[in-house]
Parts: sequence; C-alpha cells; structure tokens
Amino acid sequence: MVDQLSDKARQNALAELGAWIHNAERDAISRRFTFADFSEAFAFMARVALLAEKADHHPEWSNVYNRVDILLTTHDAGGLSQRDVQMARDIEALLSSD
Amino acid sequence: MVDQLSDKARQNALAELGAWIHNAERDAISRRFTFADFSEAFAFMARVALLAEKADHHPEWSNVYNRVDILLTTHDAGGLSQRDVQMARDIEALLSSD
Repeated sequence: MVDQLSDKARQNALAELGAWIHNAERDAISRRFTFADFSEAFAFMARVALLAEKADHHPEWSNVYNRVDILLTTHDAGGLSQRDVQMARDIEALLSSD
Repeated sequence: MVDQLSDKARQNALAELGAWIHNAERDAISRRFTFADFSEAFAFMARVALLAEKADHHPEWSNVYNRVDILLTTHDAGGLSQRDVQMARDIEALLSSD
C-alpha cells in the first residue's frame, strides 16, 4: 500500500519538479517533452518504459510525432504518492544524462 | 501530397478494417488494443513505432498499462488517406502473425 502525499510533501515535490504541472482534479503530475523527431521521442519512451517496468509503476502517456505527454499518479493511493515523485525524478535524470 | 479518401474508398476501408472505428469529426480511424500487461503492450508499441518510422507515417497514440489506443489520420490530406489504411493493415498483421 502506498500513501497519498500530504499537502506539505506535495508542495515540496512540486517545488522540486519545477517543470511538472499539478493536475488537481486527478492529483497527478504531468509534463510535456518535445524532441527533434519521432525517432528521438520513441527512444525516450523506450527508456521510460524500462524505468516504469523496473519500478512496477506505469505512466499514462501519449505521443504525437515528436511530442510525449506523461501523466503520473498512483491509483492505489488515490492520487500522488512518493512513487510518482521518484518516477518523475528518474525521467528527468534520463534527460540530464544525455 | 496524399489525397483524402473518397466516400466510397472510406466505406470500403472501414468495411475491411472491421475493428477500427471511424472518428467522423477528425476523419480518423482508431482502435484500442488490450494486452496481458505493460510489457506486452510496450512490445507491441515498439513494433508499431518501427512500422511508423519506416512508412514515415506516425500515429497519435496513448498507453495506460496494458492498453494502447491508436488513432490514424493524415494531416497533409486533411483526413483519412490510403496511408492510414495501409498502416492499420500493417498493425493488424503484427497481431495476426503472433
């Protein structure tokens, strides 16, 4: 079982993950990533898929050509949990390590 | 330049691609695919990505765990074209060859 973030923990997480937007209705975080083309976008998706499978925590996401929209929330927690924050950090780390 | 399908060609295509739904507003076709788990869903997405890149014709698609929703339309044609029909056929062929 995973706990939904407290208000304070949510505030801290959103401050840390500056580029991620809070979707209050779903208590989720989302970010749009834009790449040079489909090939780069899908390469990124493949890396995120590996992260997701390893963490057993999967995004809701969509892709149109060079654009990838990722939404993270924890169904078991009824909203945002530490697992989403960690996944967002791990996704950011993919980009900063390029 | 790619031509939008004629009404008759569209009817024939939809009859052929029985599982695909016509989205009239966008003149697009879409289908939901459901798999055993995320791993199978993403493996399918990787194969579709290769088809899409090879054909230089890319889907609008989303994934949530074991579910993949694919929408095909041709922006250059302002709607459904033969390229969408062919892509849908190629995607179907992936599944029937398992």
